Amino acid sequence: MPQTNGFSRIPVRKVSDERSEDTSDSLAVEEPLEIRVGFLDGDVRRNRAVSITMRTPGDDFELAAGFLFTEGIITSPDQIENIKHCGPKDTEGATNTVRLDLSDDTRIDLKSLERHFYTTSSCGVCGKSSIEALYTGAKKIGRSDFRIDGAMINAFPDRLRRHQEVFEHTGGLHASALFDGDGGLVEIREDVGRHNALDKVIGARFLNRETSLNETVLMVSGRASFELVQKALMASIPILLAVGPPSTLAVELAKEFGMTLVGFVRDGRYNVYSGAERVSGER
Amino acid sequence: MPQTNGFSRIPVRKVSDERSEDTSDSLAVEEPLEIRVGFLDGDVRRNRAVSITMRTPGDDFELAAGFLFTEGIITSPDQIENIKHCGPKDTEGATNTVRLDLSDDTRIDLKSLERHFYTTSSCGVCGKSSIEALYTGAKKIGRSDFRIDGAMINAFPDRLRRHQEVFEHTGGLHASALFDGDGGLVEIREDVGRHNALDKVIGARFLNRETSLNETVLMVSGRASFELVQKALMASIPILLAVGPPSTLAVELAKEFGMTLVGFVRDGRYNVYSGAERVSGER
Repeated sequence: MPQTNGFSRIPVRKVSDERSEDTSDSLAVEEPLEIRVGFLDGDVRRNRAVSITMRTPGDDFELAAGFLFTEGIITSPDQIENIKHCGPKDTEGATNTVRLDLSDDTRIDLKSLERHFYTTSSCGVCGKSSIEALYTGAKKIGRSDFRIDGAMINAFPDRLRRHQEVFEHTGGLHASALFDGDGGLVEIREDVGRHNALDKVIGARFLNRETSLNETVLMVSGRASFELVQKALMASIPILLAVGPPSTLAVELAKEFGMTLVGFVRDGRYNVYSGAERVSGER
Repeated sequence: MPQTNGFSRIPVRKVSDERSEDTSDSLAVEEPLEIRVGFLDGDVRRNRAVSITMRTPGDDFELAAGFLFTEGIITSPDQIENIKHCGPKDTEGATNTVRLDLSDDTRIDLKSLERHFYTTSSCGVCGKSSIEALYTGAKKIGRSDFRIDGAMINAFPDRLRRHQEVFEHTGGLHASALFDGDGGLVEIREDVGRHNALDKVIGARFLNRETSLNETVLMVSGRASFELVQKALMASIPILLAVGPPSTLAVELAKEFGMTLVGFVRDGRYNVYSGAERVSGER
């Protein structure tokens, strides 16, 4: 049932103190997406699944490209020769598999693939190597004059919500949005998975040939996890605002890589966990 | 920094209209956990990573055992000969790797492992096999007299919140709780990942030799995703209540397997998406 609008009407019985009613309800669509890459391995072209993620259909190419970029598998849109849906089609002609064919000169780091689909039959140093594989090779955020006006921060959640289309219909979905330094909307995406919403928004800019988003502010609708900070770092995003709290590891990572991380952006307040020097009015 | 209490104090600058203050804040701890299994493969004992998940430390054994059970890798606690932490220790002596050694007569279905760590260099039928691997082999919920009193449903979220310990300190964390038919708390766990909170709660009962939770009600703090419904089905949980909405695929799966799925349990109302026959007062 892949649908580009992201929601679907489902029969439901709604019960309250007053009454019980059989009606229908708009729910966010969730479907698996398999991301496959075709690449040259020595003399042989291979085709390999790198991820299966539960996502809200729509923007599948952006999601797939964004995923490869934020996970450190590719670094430039020039490495993508072709993106297409493949696999069995449903009645609407859509599929749940996206295949990206990479150029012959693209070196695939099999280790970074193993971050997602890691198998080994040897014991090795128990645990160490695979947990270290969580690190995708993000670089430190460079110093620049890019700032956000502290007095403006609390306006961002409203802007995010105002642009959330599926949320209106379904009562809630994760959103990621990129804004410019003046608070102008650059890109917004929604998904049942918060990491997918972020991959879609970064992937949209990546396919537009923007691999460094070093003059944008990222706003996310929920919590700031390690994974979101890591993906944002891969795209050189210097400022991350979250409606919810960050985790401890998200703060550690943001500090280590020089990202400005602001949480609990709500009710007219916010908390700066790292990089206060990019918030005008703070230092 | 693994800690059993699930939260940690972190320096923060709190900003509001009135003032800006350097203080500290309790945040939910997030750390990677690698789950490894040791098993007999032909004549050779192997040791293999089956998952790396970002989790809130604490109840690691329950999380690991619950994960293997809800993903269809093992079916009985008798298959576990030993569970231990291994790998490099941090300053507090904790590690982020758990290893489960399975009994010699445990047949490991490598396909179910591949659901998580799927690799292939052959193209095959593009997409089909690996997406089908999402299905973990859940069985239909059997018919029984187990019911929930419709008038009681809206009391569950308060009970869940009342028992959430880390949430109080950190301003939000996913929770999963099992209740008996009278609304008595059986088990509750919290985690930065909603699937982990559910694996912990199911794993706790599993290690207590309860592999069929067919007379319990599961309440989750957020949305009801496909993955949560699937995991609950593996433990034969007949009724799932969620504070948030379900996804379309969660509803489809619940209907197909005869589970009662109730969403939007808040503000004195609830929506029944499937299995209304188990809600007394509805049919």
